[in-house]
Amino acid sequence: MDNDDFRRGKPTCHKVFGENIAILAGDALLTEAFVLLSHVEKVRLSAERRLAVIQEIAQAAGICGMVGGQALDVLSGKSVSDEGTLYEIHRRKTGALIVAAVKSGAIIFNARKDKIQALAEYGINVGLAFQIADDILNVEGDRELMGKETGSDAAHNKLTYPSLLGLDLAKEKLTNYIDAAVASLSGFDERARPLLVIASYIMERKS
Amino acid sequence: MDNDDFRRGKPTCHKVFGENIAILAGDALLTEAFVLLSHVEKVRLSAERRLAVIQEIAQAAGICGMVGGQALDVLSGKSVSDEGTLYEIHRRKTGALIVAAVKSGAIIFNARKDKIQALAEYGINVGLAFQIADDILNVEGDRELMGKETGSDAAHNKLTYPSLLGLDLAKEKLTNYIDAAVASLSGFDERARPLLVIASYIMERKS
Repeated sequence: MDNDDFRRGKPTCHKVFGENIAILAGDALLTEAFVLLSHVEKVRLSAERRLAVIQEIAQAAGICGMVGGQALDVLSGKSVSDEGTLYEIHRRKTGALIVAAVKSGAIIFNARKDKIQALAEYGINVGLAFQIADDILNVEGDRELMGKETGSDAAHNKLTYPSLLGLDLAKEKLTNYIDAAVASLSGFDERARPLLVIASYIMERKS
Repeated sequence: MDNDDFRRGKPTCHKVFGENIAILAGDALLTEAFVLLSHVEKVRLSAERRLAVIQEIAQAAGICGMVGGQALDVLSGKSVSDEGTLYEIHRRKTGALIVAAVKSGAIIFNARKDKIQALAEYGINVGLAFQIADDILNVEGDRELMGKETGSDAAHNKLTYPSLLGLDLAKEKLTNYIDAAVASLSGFDERARPLLVIASYIMERKS
């Protein structure tokens, strides 16, 4: 939908196979997730918890999550200029699926409600941080490392944290969200280390 | 994907809201099905049977069903001219979801395996009949009743049963599939009447 020609140095699906096949690839991947999740033979997990994971992922992918966030993004276009809408777009587009990913692991292993809530907070903060880092890289990233054109957001007049707040304030936001993500893991032991590493990676990534 | 401007007399989604929103509407509807199916609060049904229905519908919608059939249709384009491929396209595109609809009802009410199988056969035959009837209407249907342009398949050089076999043989196929659908219900009592009515409707429909 952003009509970009490259992703991570490779031509995008619609460039190689055409728009129809690209649309169907998205439909197929969305749907196959539920084929896999409902395949009771493949993974041992109670039907109740399996259903809870399906619900978590379906909600995060659908209207209240990724698809709804993308629609909000498309509809708001260039006319929106408030941080509330930008937050809502990113929370749904990027945050919701990351939240679902960390929550699903916790649901599968029957974690306590407060632990699941803490992981959800980690996910939403990491998701927003990831999106802001992405927007910052689109302004000042290295085209070679990124494997795609930079500056496309500005060229398309797209609303982003850097375009709304300027680079310095956007970087401050990024740091705040990463700090919040790390803080939400305070009640966990060293087994939460991979999540901390992911949070650091988002701050440091160059592509 | 057929780029038609009208469906049942109303402008198509991509005409009114643009391609991006039309794509997202499809993604949203595909995904919300699984949000609804996994909502355990709304309908009383055991988690096991609920999962079986989710699996049935996900498989019918995904690569092995609707999405895969549509992809096959797009990829084969004008180059295919054998009945086997045409059958496979329709079985997946139209048949699979109809099979899932009738099987899901049977799964929910814990029907016997042989009954579920008979209903699946009904579904596949009705699905193929529906598609052939659709193709025939595209050739000789009434534009007013249909609420869309007829003749678009021929204009797009699309492979259909009428274009492959001629109208007479296509109508014979239609009758054969309807007969097979009706025959598959022979082991059911009068409660299967609505399914027989649907089969008759497909033969008689004008739009």
